Amino acid sequence: MGVLIEPKLLKGFRDFLPEEEMARKEIIAILENTFQLFGFLPIDTPVLEYAEVLLGKGGGETDKQVYRFQDHGDRDVALRFDLTVPFARFMAGHSNELYTPFKRYHISKVWRGENTQRGRYREFTQCDFDIVGVDSSSADFEILLLMTASFQALGITDITIHVSHRGILNDFLETRQIQNQSVEILRTVDKVGKIGKKATMEQLSELVGERNAEDIFSFIRLENDNVTTLEKLKSMAQTGSEGIARLLELMAYSDDLDLSSWFVIDPSITRGLDYYTGIVYETFLQKAHKIGSVCSGGRYNNLASLYSKERFPGVGSSIGLDRLLAALETVGTDKTQILSVEILILNMDDRLTGYYHKLAQLLRGEKMKCEVYPENKKLAKQFQYAEKKKIPFALICGEDERVKNVVSLKNLNTRKSHEELSIKELTNIVRKELYET
Amino acid sequence: MGVLIEPKLLKGFRDFLPEEEMARKEIIAILENTFQLFGFLPIDTPVLEYAEVLLGKGGGETDKQVYRFQDHGDRDVALRFDLTVPFARFMAGHSNELYTPFKRYHISKVWRGENTQRGRYREFTQCDFDIVGVDSSSADFEILLLMTASFQALGITDITIHVSHRGILNDFLETRQIQNQSVEILRTVDKVGKIGKKATMEQLSELVGERNAEDIFSFIRLENDNVTTLEKLKSMAQTGSEGIARLLELMAYSDDLDLSSWFVIDPSITRGLDYYTGIVYETFLQKAHKIGSVCSGGRYNNLASLYSKERFPGVGSSIGLDRLLAALETVGTDKTQILSVEILILNMDDRLTGYYHKLAQLLRGEKMKCEVYPENKKLAKQFQYAEKKKIPFALICGEDERVKNVVSLKNLNTRKSHEELSIKELTNIVRKELYET
Repeated sequence: MGVLIEPKLLKGFRDFLPEEEMARKEIIAILENTFQLFGFLPIDTPVLEYAEVLLGKGGGETDKQVYRFQDHGDRDVALRFDLTVPFARFMAGHSNELYTPFKRYHISKVWRGENTQRGRYREFTQCDFDIVGVDSSSADFEILLLMTASFQALGITDITIHVSHRGILNDFLETRQIQNQSVEILRTVDKVGKIGKKATMEQLSELVGERNAEDIFSFIRLENDNVTTLEKLKSMAQTGSEGIARLLELMAYSDDLDLSSWFVIDPSITRGLDYYTGIVYETFLQKAHKIGSVCSGGRYNNLASLYSKERFPGVGSSIGLDRLLAALETVGTDKTQILSVEILILNMDDRLTGYYHKLAQLLRGEKMKCEVYPENKKLAKQFQYAEKKKIPFALICGEDERVKNVVSLKNLNTRKSHEELSIKELTNIVRKELYET
Repeated sequence: MGVLIEPKLLKGFRDFLPEEEMARKEIIAILENTFQLFGFLPIDTPVLEYAEVLLGKGGGETDKQVYRFQDHGDRDVALRFDLTVPFARFMAGHSNELYTPFKRYHISKVWRGENTQRGRYREFTQCDFDIVGVDSSSADFEILLLMTASFQALGITDITIHVSHRGILNDFLETRQIQNQSVEILRTVDKVGKIGKKATMEQLSELVGERNAEDIFSFIRLENDNVTTLEKLKSMAQTGSEGIARLLELMAYSDDLDLSSWFVIDPSITRGLDYYTGIVYETFLQKAHKIGSVCSGGRYNNLASLYSKERFPGVGSSIGLDRLLAALETVGTDKTQILSVEILILNMDDRLTGYYHKLAQLLRGEKMKCEVYPENKKLAKQFQYAEKKKIPFALICGEDERVKNVVSLKNLNTRKSHEELSIKELTNIVRKELYET
């Protein structure tokens, strides 16, 4: 053998060991189950696409972060940096096969060569859900409702969804005749959480003058309750603002479903991205506000305009799975420990190997997770394995027991033993001691 | 808007629409559930790694197919082309945190810039499961047992696992003193399924002479039953062949579990790859033999020798998910249609939107998959949507019904209606008509 290669990972990339991966899979399973209860269906798209398809003809802020290269056939290709652009391409490419409204979810990895400081990863998992092909308050509300249902299913209830509407701010800017600067204003306002009020104010003053900057700040300020905030918005925006009408509908629906306490009308929420045209929202865990929004999105006018003349209005949301997990850790959500394996069948006698596997199959028939220790090593070593893998029970069976068609069971936490059991009796004891105490 | 960009995919890459993606997810869920019943735990590794880590210092046959490029930091990186190499790197890098025997599974995408003819894809999904850190017939058998359990769980039973042992062929080659050519011989024999007997014979004759080539063919020939094959192998290989002893143990265990009919001792199975050192196996659907092996693997002496002086003997198997799906389609396995959504709540009156969402939540509380049509469009349009999405039931509720706190239900297949139902009654009818007939 030559010189060893260091088994190192790229900066910003991670392995997931079983315990962490199981936790991730459990969260994903809960989300998928919730999405499906709402009629959202899964899709998948390639990790690698034509760079032009992902980035458009021009170059933007994200481009520098994109993993882009020439493939074997000298094609200019890139790894996807989000799930929205591939979804837009998907809708345009499959419009003949699809129907609208089309409700999809997509949970998968994306890649950005970002600065890895402050816990940012270069490979991370996004979880997107969207309703495309309809512009209605019912669809807007369904996304918000699904967000509440998802967090409830995850056992997270100390959370608030901050909702605003792009149109209202635009209507207000129109009253000041500064609507032509709306893109820059929105981007600046969006930074307030990061750079603070003072710096934002300075930047806004430069853009639109001090007086307008002050009014914008008064506009985006959070009031004591949603009714007061809406009243303020009504008085500051134009009369007949469609945005306000839409927000009022959404609040009425959330009253109907007793969900008002989840929602905060927060005019400071603008989302930096150009493509939002209607409601926008961000979600904060009350005990982990600093981590930032764990689920954000909004309504867009035209998803697939880069690829198709067909219009695809939609509304959607994206959960950053890694950030959500970080938030859950911070909050210390009391997740029940996921048991990897319930029973270890000890190898007491190599000649019984076939019999051990047979016992294992009987247990699996009873839906018990179990495994046979694969060698006749010292028992201390086998118990050590059970401890490392957090297996709570050992099944013990020697030749005598095999002849009598019985087994013994040891609870590895309490050290309590049970002898001369049938498989059915053993299963009942394990279930009782594991799940009924 | 400027010129539209064509929403095209790279050759060899695919989108998965909901119906197909749901079928894929269901198969993965069944496999994961089975793996976990056997105490195999999930891990995940990055899609992108240092090229040196994935490819070693030299260059091999696979290198040409690997997606490899310089990233922003001028690092030489590559997309993984299988799940075995990252697993080897994983074991070497985390040996301090892990225990052995370590049993993991990993279901994920890999990339190879292969010729896309003959239904090969450049992005495809592998499903690997391995036991590392032990060399025993019990571990070998557990992998084989898990393969039978996985296929059984998928409802595939017309399948055979063809098993051989690298050592036996090597022992035989030793009797002919051609063991130093074993790598070339194994690779040539491995091609017999593809290039046919005649061409293989010619290549072998060139390598080792006609006489030896004929004997090799006699050696690898499948006999009428496992006992006869084993007898032949015993007589042709050296006495005391460890490989034969191991195969005999495996056959004894499979007798213990009444699984003998799953296994064919097939000395023509060699697996081309150098790293196998013990049992090797391939799996064929009887009705779709031509598609090739849908699950292959074997025992290897030292998984992580590129990265670590620590030895990691192991045994494992890999299911090619795409090939398995192709095989299932060929065989036409009678999978029950997965219902995306069970009930569509029609929008009869926009003023009831909040109420419709409330009804939907009640149904979801009963674990029914349902959705609210998001606009007050013509009923014909709403029924069309149900048809496209294969939703079997419509819930109908107008203002009169809301006041009476009842709903109507229509079975969209039979056209039969039920009126004045409570949510509970509706749920019972849907369950009965969907799942009890």
